[in-house]
Amino acid sequence: MDYRVEKDTMGEVKVPNSHYWAAQTQRSFENFKIGTEKMPDELIKAFALLKRALAKVNHDLGKLDSHKANAIIQACDEIMDGKFKDEFPLAIWQTGSGTQTNMNLNEVIANRATEILGGDFREKRLIHPNDDVNMSQSSNDTFPTAMHIVAVLQITNSLLPNLEKLKNSLEAKENEFKDIIKIGRTHLQDATPLTLGQEFSGYRYMLEHSSEQIKLSLKHLRELTIGGTAVGTGLNAHPEIGKRVSDELSKLTNEHFISSPNKFHGLTSHDALVFASGALKALAGNLMKIANDIRWLASGPRCGLGEINLPENEPGSSIMPGKVNPTQAEAVTMVVAQIFGNDTTIAFGASQGNFELNVFKPVIIYNFLQSVRLLSDCMDSFKFHCVDGITPNLEKIEHNLHNSLMLVTALNPHIGYENAAKVAKTAHKDGSSLKEAALKLGLLSAKDFDKFVVPKNMI
Amino acid sequence: MDYRVEKDTMGEVKVPNSHYWAAQTQRSFENFKIGTEKMPDELIKAFALLKRALAKVNHDLGKLDSHKANAIIQACDEIMDGKFKDEFPLAIWQTGSGTQTNMNLNEVIANRATEILGGDFREKRLIHPNDDVNMSQSSNDTFPTAMHIVAVLQITNSLLPNLEKLKNSLEAKENEFKDIIKIGRTHLQDATPLTLGQEFSGYRYMLEHSSEQIKLSLKHLRELTIGGTAVGTGLNAHPEIGKRVSDELSKLTNEHFISSPNKFHGLTSHDALVFASGALKALAGNLMKIANDIRWLASGPRCGLGEINLPENEPGSSIMPGKVNPTQAEAVTMVVAQIFGNDTTIAFGASQGNFELNVFKPVIIYNFLQSVRLLSDCMDSFKFHCVDGITPNLEKIEHNLHNSLMLVTALNPHIGYENAAKVAKTAHKDGSSLKEAALKLGLLSAKDFDKFVVPKNMI
Amino acid sequence: MDYRVEKDTMGEVKVPNSHYWAAQTQRSFENFKIGTEKMPDELIKAFALLKRALAKVNHDLGKLDSHKANAIIQACDEIMDGKFKDEFPLAIWQTGSGTQTNMNLNEVIANRATEILGGDFREKRLIHPNDDVNMSQSSNDTFPTAMHIVAVLQITNSLLPNLEKLKNSLEAKENEFKDIIKIGRTHLQDATPLTLGQEFSGYRYMLEHSSEQIKLSLKHLRELTIGGTAVGTGLNAHPEIGKRVSDELSKLTNEHFISSPNKFHGLTSHDALVFASGALKALAGNLMKIANDIRWLASGPRCGLGEINLPENEPGSSIMPGKVNPTQAEAVTMVVAQIFGNDTTIAFGASQGNFELNVFKPVIIYNFLQSVRLLSDCMDSFKFHCVDGITPNLEKIEHNLHNSLMLVTALNPHIGYENAAKVAKTAHKDGSSLKEAALKLGLLSAKDFDKFVVPKNMI
Amino acid sequence: MDYRVEKDTMGEVKVPNSHYWAAQTQRSFENFKIGTEKMPDELIKAFALLKRALAKVNHDLGKLDSHKANAIIQACDEIMDGKFKDEFPLAIWQTGSGTQTNMNLNEVIANRATEILGGDFREKRLIHPNDDVNMSQSSNDTFPTAMHIVAVLQITNSLLPNLEKLKNSLEAKENEFKDIIKIGRTHLQDATPLTLGQEFSGYRYMLEHSSEQIKLSLKHLRELTIGGTAVGTGLNAHPEIGKRVSDELSKLTNEHFISSPNKFHGLTSHDALVFASGALKALAGNLMKIANDIRWLASGPRCGLGEINLPENEPGSSIMPGKVNPTQAEAVTMVVAQIFGNDTTIAFGASQGNFELNVFKPVIIYNFLQSVRLLSDCMDSFKFHCVDGITPNLEKIEHNLHNSLMLVTALNPHIGYENAAKVAKTAHKDGSSLKEAALKLGLLSAKDFDKFVVPKNMI
Repeated sequence: MDYRVEKDTMGEVKVPNSHYWAAQTQRSFENFKIGTEKMPDELIKAFALLKRALAKVNHDLGKLDSHKANAIIQACDEIMDGKFKDEFPLAIWQTGSGTQTNMNLNEVIANRATEILGGDFREKRLIHPNDDVNMSQSSNDTFPTAMHIVAVLQITNSLLPNLEKLKNSLEAKENEFKDIIKIGRTHLQDATPLTLGQEFSGYRYMLEHSSEQIKLSLKHLRELTIGGTAVGTGLNAHPEIGKRVSDELSKLTNEHFISSPNKFHGLTSHDALVFASGALKALAGNLMKIANDIRWLASGPRCGLGEINLPENEPGSSIMPGKVNPTQAEAVTMVVAQIFGNDTTIAFGASQGNFELNVFKPVIIYNFLQSVRLLSDCMDSFKFHCVDGITPNLEKIEHNLHNSLMLVTALNPHIGYENAAKVAKTAHKDGSSLKEAALKLGLLSAKDFDKFVVPKNMI
Repeated sequence: MDYRVEKDTMGEVKVPNSHYWAAQTQRSFENFKIGTEKMPDELIKAFALLKRALAKVNHDLGKLDSHKANAIIQACDEIMDGKFKDEFPLAIWQTGSGTQTNMNLNEVIANRATEILGGDFREKRLIHPNDDVNMSQSSNDTFPTAMHIVAVLQITNSLLPNLEKLKNSLEAKENEFKDIIKIGRTHLQDATPLTLGQEFSGYRYMLEHSSEQIKLSLKHLRELTIGGTAVGTGLNAHPEIGKRVSDELSKLTNEHFISSPNKFHGLTSHDALVFASGALKALAGNLMKIANDIRWLASGPRCGLGEINLPENEPGSSIMPGKVNPTQAEAVTMVVAQIFGNDTTIAFGASQGNFELNVFKPVIIYNFLQSVRLLSDCMDSFKFHCVDGITPNLEKIEHNLHNSLMLVTALNPHIGYENAAKVAKTAHKDGSSLKEAALKLGLLSAKDFDKFVVPKNMI
Repeated sequence: MDYRVEKDTMGEVKVPNSHYWAAQTQRSFENFKIGTEKMPDELIKAFALLKRALAKVNHDLGKLDSHKANAIIQACDEIMDGKFKDEFPLAIWQTGSGTQTNMNLNEVIANRATEILGGDFREKRLIHPNDDVNMSQSSNDTFPTAMHIVAVLQITNSLLPNLEKLKNSLEAKENEFKDIIKIGRTHLQDATPLTLGQEFSGYRYMLEHSSEQIKLSLKHLRELTIGGTAVGTGLNAHPEIGKRVSDELSKLTNEHFISSPNKFHGLTSHDALVFASGALKALAGNLMKIANDIRWLASGPRCGLGEINLPENEPGSSIMPGKVNPTQAEAVTMVVAQIFGNDTTIAFGASQGNFELNVFKPVIIYNFLQSVRLLSDCMDSFKFHCVDGITPNLEKIEHNLHNSLMLVTALNPHIGYENAAKVAKTAHKDGSSLKEAALKLGLLSAKDFDKFVVPKNMI
Repeated sequence: MDYRVEKDTMGEVKVPNSHYWAAQTQRSFENFKIGTEKMPDELIKAFALLKRALAKVNHDLGKLDSHKANAIIQACDEIMDGKFKDEFPLAIWQTGSGTQTNMNLNEVIANRATEILGGDFREKRLIHPNDDVNMSQSSNDTFPTAMHIVAVLQITNSLLPNLEKLKNSLEAKENEFKDIIKIGRTHLQDATPLTLGQEFSGYRYMLEHSSEQIKLSLKHLRELTIGGTAVGTGLNAHPEIGKRVSDELSKLTNEHFISSPNKFHGLTSHDALVFASGALKALAGNLMKIANDIRWLASGPRCGLGEINLPENEPGSSIMPGKVNPTQAEAVTMVVAQIFGNDTTIAFGASQGNFELNVFKPVIIYNFLQSVRLLSDCMDSFKFHCVDGITPNLEKIEHNLHNSLMLVTALNPHIGYENAAKVAKTAHKDGSSLKEAALKLGLLSAKDFDKFVVPKNMI
C-alpha cells in the first residue's frame, strides 16, 4: 500500500495515502484491533451535522472566516450524503470519550475542506483539524452532543413512525375483529370471553403507551452539552456557542434542541439515554407479549390453540415438510432479548463516570442505536410480514368458546360464587356441558340458564 | 395450636383459630413455603385502601347495603392503621396474579367486618369474602390496581421528598463551594480547572433530571385498571366502577388517579412499572457517579486525592486503627447494584404475559417497592450522614491546582494546540512548571504567560 | 429504654442495655437506616463457625489462652444454635466490607464469652472484641471467608439435595410416561412425535446438567481467604492461619475447604460467586423451560393443549368459579425472574473492586443467598405440590397425535421432502387426513402409507 | 440485476443469478430486513465443518455415494477457506431455530457441489439441498451443534490463548515489581503496605481463576446434539450418527466432542452456553477490576495517585494539549459493559424454550460469539498496548508509603488496637508523622517504634 507520513503532537505516523484521515485516526486504528463493531453510520452523520453547525456558528461569531467555514460546511454535507463511508474506520472499543472519532471527523473534514479550497492535503493542509474544525470544541462536549442528536433523529425519524404503523395495523385488526367473541385465557387456563378485537385493542394500547413513554423520554435527549468543552466550563468557547449551535441544529433538523443549562452534567451523566433505554425496554416487553400471544394463538395447525392464521412466508422446516412457523414473531422476540441486554450495558456504562467525564460513551451509544434500529426494523417487518396478514380461524374460535366452562362466571350474580363453582366442577368432572351440570345440580332452570349465560353479554 | 375448620370451593382446611384469615389464605400459606419475602406492608395497605374505595362505590351504586359497606370500610381503615400486621403471611412466591393475597385481604376484611357487625366469624360470617368484599372485582383487576396505587404513593410520599432533600443539600454545597477553584479530571487524568461548586452543580442537576424523569414516569402509573375484572371486559362489574373508584382514591390520597381507557392492557402489560423502573435506574446511575466521586475526592488521608473531607461516623477497620472509610457512599453504591438487578427482574417479569393476564405481578411489585424504598432511604442516609458534613481540603485543592499541567490549555488560542502540547510535554518530562517550560521553549514571554494562564479565568 | 454507655476508638455511644452488642454495632445501626434487609441468618451462623475455628487455631498456635478460647468457642456454638437471633440487627446496606457485621460478631461474642467466664460485660469485658475475638483477623479476610463458607453450605446442604429430589421426581415421571406417544411441537407448531417420557427425560437431563454445573462452580468457593487480614499480606497473622482454619472448618462441616493460594485475589475478586451465580442462572433458565412446558401442557381444561393434568391445590380465581391454575409453575417462573436480577446485581458488585478490596460484599452475598434459598425452596415446592401429581390426559394426547400432519415426515425417505410437503399441504388445505391426501395425490399406496407412517416407529 | 427463478415447497422466487444461494435463502433475505447483524463468519465456518463431517459419515453409513459426498466435502472446505463470504447474507433476526441459515448452507453447498461435479446449478442441480446436504439432519439438531462447535473452537483457539498471554504479561510484572513496597488501599483509603508485585499477583491469579472457570464451562459445550433431528428422537437419522459425527469432528478439530446422551435437552436447553457466559462474565468482572486499578494507579500526572506509568499511545485530548489517557483500559471497561449486557440477552433467550425447541438460537450465539471475540481481542490489545509497557513511578510510590498513617497497624500487637488508633488519629490531626505522634503520646520509645514499624516486615 501507498503511505504518506503524517504527524501529530506525539510524532510521525504512516497513513494509507488513499485515505483522508490523518495521524490520530491512524493511531487509533492500529491501537484498537478489537471486535468488528465500527462507529455507526448514523452517528458519523450526526457528528458531521454538528460540525457543520459549529462551522456556521464560529463564522457568525467572527472566529472563522467565511472561506474556511464554507469549505468545512461543504465537507460536512458530503459526509452526510454518504460520500466518505470508508473514511471512518474506527472501532467502538477505543477511548471512552470518543475522542478518536471526534478527531477522525476533524481530520477527514479538514483534509476534504482543504481539497475544496483547491489545496492538496497530502502536501499542506489549508484547514487545521484542531484549530479550525474543532474550534471552540472538545471531544468531551461534541461526542455527547452527537449522541443526543443521533438518538433524537433515529427515534423521531425511524422508530416512532414504524411504531405508529404497527399500531395502526393492530388497530385495523381491532376493528376488523370487533365482533368475534372468543374464550379468554388467564394463567393459560380458560377464562371468561372477550372479543378478538378487544384482545387486539390491548396490543394497540400497549403501543400507544410505549409511544407516549418514548416521547416523554425525548425531553432530556433534546438537551445538548455543546459549549461545555473539556470539563464543562466552556473554556476556549464563546459563551453563546451552546445556544447558537442548538438553534442551528434545530433549524437544520426541524427538531427541537436546547443548550443544556448544566454542562457538567452533560459530560458525565447519560441519564437521558438510560431513561430512554428504559422506554425502549418497556416497548420491547410489550412487543414480547404481543408476539408471544400471536404465535400462541396461531399454534397448530391441528394440535395447538389455532384461533388465528398467520401468513405463510417461507417453508418452516428442513426436515418436516409443509411446516409453517411463526418466524416473524420469533425475530421480534429475539430482538426483545437483545434490547434487554443492551439496556443492561447502557445503564452499566452510564453509572461509571468519574469526575468531569464519563468514558463509556461509545459503548452506550452503540447499544442505544442498535436498540432503536432493531426495534424500528422489526416492528416494520412484523407489521408487513405478519400482523397485516392475520386472519381469524372462526371455526376453532367458535368451538372453543362454546366448549368452555368459564361461561359459568355469568351465574355468579344469580346463584353466588360457591354454587357457580359447583356447576363448573361438576361439568369438568362429568365431561358435560355447564347447562347439563347446572340442571343436574338443580340450581336453576334451563330457561334461566339460557338467559344468564350469553357470551355476547359477557364482553 | 388451636385450629378451626374453614372451607372454600375445594373443601375443608384447618386454620389457626387465632387468625382472621380463612381457607384460601391458609392453602397458599401451606403450599408456598418459598423464601422469606412476604407481601410488603405498603402493598397490603394500598390494597386495603382500594377495598375501602370499592366498598364505598359499591354502596353508592346501590349494590352493597350501608351496614355491610361501613363495616368493610372500618376494617380497611384498621388494616391501614397497621392493626393486623400478622394477618398477611403470604409469600411473594405464590400465584402470579396475586389472587391469594387478594383473597387474604377479602378474608381478613370479611372476618373483621363480621366482628364489627357484632358477629363471630368463627361461627358464621356476616360478610362474604367474595360476594361482599370482592364485589364487582377480580384479583386480576384489583392486584394491578393496588400495584399502581402503592407505586404512586411510595414515589410521591417517600422517594421524591428524599430526592428533593438530597438535591437541596447538594445545592447548598454548590453555593458554599462556588469560589473554590480546583483541578478538573477527565479520564482520571488532570484536566482544566473548574470550581468545586461547579462539580457539585453537576450532581445537583443530575438529581433534577432524575426527579423530572420519575415524575414523567408517574403518568401511566396513575392509570388504574379497576373495573376490568377477570379479563378486562368488566364482567359482573358496573360500568362506572373504574371511574368512580379512581375518583374515590384520588379523594382519599390527594393524588390524581384515572381509570385506564383500556383494561385489557392493564391486566397484561406492566409497561408503566418498567418505564418507572427505568427512571429509578437512571437515578441509581446518577447516585453511583455522585457517591463514587465523593469517595474518590475524599480518598486518603495521605495517599489519595484528598480534596474533600467526609464526616467520621464510625471506626473504619477492625485491624487498622484510626481508619475512616466512606461507608455511606458504599451503602449507596451497593443500593445501586440492587436497583440494577431489580430492574432486570421487573422487565423480565413484565415481558412474560400471556393472553388476558400477566402472572408475574408479585415479583414485579416486590422488586419495584424494594427499589423505591432503598433509594428513598439511602438518599436520606447519604444526605444526613455524608453530604451535609462534607468540607473542602483547601490546602490539597490549592496544591493540586497549581501543580497541574493542564492549565496549558489556556494557551491554545494564543500559541496554537501544537505548541501548547510542546509546553506541557516539556514540563512533564523535565518535572518543571508550565511557565518554566514555556519560557525555555521561547514560545511566549513570562508576562504573557501570567496574563493568559489564570485559573480563575478558565472556569 | 434502658441504655448503657459503650465506647470505641471514636468515643462514647449509648447502647440498649438489654443487648449484647456494643459501640460499633450501635453506630452502624443508627447510621444505616436503609431498607428492611438484614444480614441473613445463614451468614451470621457461618460467621460464628468461622470465629469458632479461629479461636481454636489461635489457641493451638499459642496466641490465645484456653480459658478465653473456650469461652469464645461456646459463645459461637450458642450463636450457631440460634440463641442470639436478635443480636444481629445490621442492614445489608452498611459498609461494603461488612466490617460492621464482623464487629457485631466480635462484640456479641466478646460479651457473651465474658458472661461465660463469669464476668459482667456491662461492667467490664473479660474478652476484647478486637484483640481476642478478632485476633489475627480483619473484616477484609473474615467477611469473604464467611461468604464462601455459607455459599458452600447452602448449596450442598439445601440446593443440591432439593435439586436431586426434583430430578428424581422428573425421572419417575419419565419412566411412568415412557410408552405414551404424543405429538411433538417446535416453534409452537405441530412436529413429529415423541413420548411424553422423552419430553420429561429432557427436563431430567437439564437438572443433571445444572447439578453438574453447580458442583463445578463449588471448586473456587472452597478457597478461603482467611489469613490475608487487611490487604492480603497476612499482617499480624500467623502464616499458618489460612491452612489451619481451612482444615478446622473442613473438619467441622465435613466439606472440603482450602486456603486460597493468593489472598490479594480473595479480598478483591468475587469471581467464584459470579461463576456460581451463572450456574444458578443456568438452572433458573432450565426451570423456566420446565415450568412453562408444564403449565402449557396443562392449559385448558377445554380450550388449551390439555395433555397433562396438574394437582388442584387451591381455588384459582376470586371471580371465575371452578378455575384451577398452574400456581406452582407460576411461583417457579417468578423465582426465575428474581434469580436473573440477582445475577445482574452480583456481577455488577463483583466488577467494582478497587485496589486491595472490593466493597460490595454484603450486597453480593445477600443476593447470592436469596438465589440459593429461593431455588432450593421452589424446587421443593414444585416437586411436592406439582410434579409428583402430574397425570397424563391420554384421550387428548391420542387425539392430537392422530390428528397431526407432521407424521408426514416419516415419508421423506420414501417419497422425498418435496412430495411429502405436497401431502401435508394438501391435507391442511382440504382438512383431510394425511393418508387421504397421499392417496389423492397418487404418491403411494394405502398399504405403503400404513407401513411407513407409524408413530411408534418415529420416536 | 440478473435473476433466475428458483422454487421450493412454497413456490417460485427470484434469486440474483450471481449468487449460489437459492429459494429459501432468498425468502429469508427478503422477509427479514432487520438490523445490520449477519450470521458471524465463525459460525458459518463451523457449520460448514459440521456439514463436511455429516457428508463423510453419511457416506460411511452407505447412505450417500462417494461422488456426492466428495463434492459436498470439497464445497465445505472451500467455505471454510473463506471463499464464499458473500453467499451468507442472512440476518441474525430470522427464524429462531436458525433454519434459514441451515438452508443457506444447504443451498450454497448443493449448488457449489453441483459445479464441482461438472453440473450447472442454474440449469439442474446434481445435489439436493435437503435430501443430500441435509441428509439425516434437521436445522433443529445442526444449528445447536454448530453453536457448540464454534463456541468451543473460539474459546480454545482464541480466548484462552489471549487470556494466557495477558496472564503471562501480568506475571512478568509481578516478578519485575516484587520488591517495590507501596501503600495498600482499602475503601479507597490508605491501608497497610504490600508490594506492587503482590498487587499484580492478585490480577494474575484472577486470570488463572477465570481460565479455569472457562475450561470447566467447556465440558457441556463439548456435548453435541447432532443425531436428534427434528424433535430429539432422531427420526430419519441413523442411530450412530451422533457418535460418528462427534468423532469425526473431534478428529477434524483436535478438540474433544461427544454425542449428547439426551437430544431432547440439546434442542431446548442452552444451559451450556448460559453457564459458559457466566464464566465470561466472571472474567469480565476481573478485567474491570484490573483495568480500573491500572488506570487509577496511573492517574495524574500531577494530581492523581501516579504510582505507575502507562505507555503513551496517542494524544489524549482534542483540546487539552499534552494529555495522555488510559485509553486501553477504557476500551477494556467498555467491553466489560458489553459482556454484561450480552449475558443478560443469552440467559433471557435460553429461558424461553417451549416443548421440543428453543427458538432464540441465533441471538444466543450472536451474543456469545461477540463476547468471546471482544474479550479475546481486548485482552490482546490491553496486553500489548498497555500492560507490557507499565513502569513504576518509584518516587511517588516511596513518597506515599512513608507518608501513610496506616503503618500504625504494625503497632497493634505491641500497644493494642486502641492505643494504635490514638497514634494514628493524633498524627492525622496534627499533620505529624506517626513516630512523632507515638512519642508525644508516650506510648513507646523511638527505638521500639523504629523496630516495630518497618514496611518491609509488613508485607
